[in-house]
Amino acid sequence: MTVPVTAPATAPQILARCRELVRPALTVAVERMHPWPAEMAAFSFGWSEVGGAPVPGPGPGSRGKGVRQALTVLCAEAAGGRGEDAVVGAVAVELIHTFSLLHDDIMDGDETRRQRASVWKAYGTGPAVLAGDALFALAVETLAASRNVHSGAAVRHLAATLNDLVRGQADDLLFEARPWRGPGAVSPQEYRSMAGHKTGALLGCAAGLGAVLAGAPAATADVLAAAGRHLGVAFQAVDDLLGIWGDPRVTGKPVHSDLRRLKKTYPVIAALSTDSPAARQLVALLASGSPLDDAGARRAAGLVEEAGGRDATLAEARRHLDSARACLTSVPLAPAAVGDILTLLPFLVDRRM
Amino acid sequence: MTVPVTAPATAPQILARCRELVRPALTVAVERMHPWPAEMAAFSFGWSEVGGAPVPGPGPGSRGKGVRQALTVLCAEAAGGRGEDAVVGAVAVELIHTFSLLHDDIMDGDETRRQRASVWKAYGTGPAVLAGDALFALAVETLAASRNVHSGAAVRHLAATLNDLVRGQADDLLFEARPWRGPGAVSPQEYRSMAGHKTGALLGCAAGLGAVLAGAPAATADVLAAAGRHLGVAFQAVDDLLGIWGDPRVTGKPVHSDLRRLKKTYPVIAALSTDSPAARQLVALLASGSPLDDAGARRAAGLVEEAGGRDATLAEARRHLDSARACLTSVPLAPAAVGDILTLLPFLVDRRM
Repeated sequence: MTVPVTAPATAPQILARCRELVRPALTVAVERMHPWPAEMAAFSFGWSEVGGAPVPGPGPGSRGKGVRQALTVLCAEAAGGRGEDAVVGAVAVELIHTFSLLHDDIMDGDETRRQRASVWKAYGTGPAVLAGDALFALAVETLAASRNVHSGAAVRHLAATLNDLVRGQADDLLFEARPWRGPGAVSPQEYRSMAGHKTGALLGCAAGLGAVLAGAPAATADVLAAAGRHLGVAFQAVDDLLGIWGDPRVTGKPVHSDLRRLKKTYPVIAALSTDSPAARQLVALLASGSPLDDAGARRAAGLVEEAGGRDATLAEARRHLDSARACLTSVPLAPAAVGDILTLLPFLVDRRM
Repeated sequence: MTVPVTAPATAPQILARCRELVRPALTVAVERMHPWPAEMAAFSFGWSEVGGAPVPGPGPGSRGKGVRQALTVLCAEAAGGRGEDAVVGAVAVELIHTFSLLHDDIMDGDETRRQRASVWKAYGTGPAVLAGDALFALAVETLAASRNVHSGAAVRHLAATLNDLVRGQADDLLFEARPWRGPGAVSPQEYRSMAGHKTGALLGCAAGLGAVLAGAPAATADVLAAAGRHLGVAFQAVDDLLGIWGDPRVTGKPVHSDLRRLKKTYPVIAALSTDSPAARQLVALLASGSPLDDAGARRAAGLVEEAGGRDATLAEARRHLDSARACLTSVPLAPAAVGDILTLLPFLVDRRM
């Protein structure tokens, strides 16, 4: 007689399981919206085209990996609860994530998102503001109205995160007007703080909410939230690398796109914080203030790399991934769920490289 | 020996008392924001000029009457509690009110607000989106983090209101594209529903939060919330009258401004819902789709009045004021606070007429 051995789930399998668990509740929530913001939300989730026609193909939920919802479900399981208990938190987090994409695209003037028009570009700025507000309101209501006995603590967690998100976005927007070098330049430490708020906070919230809704002790929830924040910062560092060296066929953006737009990302800031000849040449190239052409962007990318910006960003991503892993061993957690989270970590960060 | 007789407080005295009670906590909340959205919030509250310089003159809180915060404080007192207990709710409601002004001005393209530039006009659209988001997040956090034992119920109340607000704004924006007459025209009933969400919901929330935070029974909180909603709809009807017949020196807007902009307000919708010669002439005038000039707007105002739109709107305002008063006698409440609310009602609705 042989004992059947189950192979450990792969990252795509884990993400798919969590998406399938969360999707019905997410659909119900979006259907409660006013039809107009609901259409914009469905477009943004990749469920429909502009105008509301369903997207044919591999099926709903195929756009975006659903990292945040997966983290919520898995952290509930890691804390000894059931993923089902945390679905309401996963829904709230996905709604807030989408809210932030809609409003950030307006503020940043980004015309595309996931290789389609951004919502403001497709529907207009005013309607996109409205749809973001509607998603925000729905997220808060979904969590506040939940019958989970821990929903009060969950709302407090979400509310604190919302303030962090706004703070991070405010800093990011203000960075644009700062000089490339000198006393007013953005330091690597300031950039880390911004990324911690802008990207780390929501992944931390996703993880923390899972634990909170599963009734985990505060210490466990704090540790899982910290793991989520580290993952978020690693995520942001990888995004910054992709914004310069990502494959245009995969990212949907032109090569060196962040450099062309003179965006202050970690690789550039790290490069400029060195006192190297490459850093000085890079400042001279960037300080003109006009967007770079093909040759200029290629040269800037070379100088960022030469001044160590690429390596510093990779090291930053690895450091935060290691910290996320360390968090997961610092408190007692359910081994199977921790195994799933550990399977996801490299998959999420090594994406598209 | 004579017993000193205290004259009942006047409406301005009542409003000032409530503003003074709420202002310290509102200031503390705004100071917790990131400095950039905090500056935009202070500008919007009328505390500072663009750039952050304090506004000289009659002092902080002088812009806007603070109707919503007063309603929260007075309803806490009416429910037998202390105004102090409801301050956190008053703060949340004022923050949400300001959030909605900021975002609505973007969506409606309104360049002025209270005779100054609107926030998006003064600071840019992206920053105004951010400031609105920051106020929204701060409102939720303020209430969720409060130590008031009823804060959970208060957050649920606020969250439901936020969804109503967005729903009302969505309807209002969609009304713009509807025809003036025929099967697709906006009916008076649809307009009432929109106003109930867009304006009634937040005043209802202001009143209900006061009762909830004072620990009132659900029936009392529901009645006070209903009174607030009626006041809000009356308020909106008066706003619509002022948008056509208000004194430009008081409203800060050109005479007939809503007609010039072809805005679908209650007086016009009520006028067009009649089968009168004036209504038919009014449609002909409005249906061209281009903004009206002086003569056109004057003529349209005359036709709205002739078709009964002005009287219908006044009647609508009076009906809702009466309903608000009726609510206040339907459950046992503290007489002194009810007296203050009854003093405020006509003052709030008869403003600037």
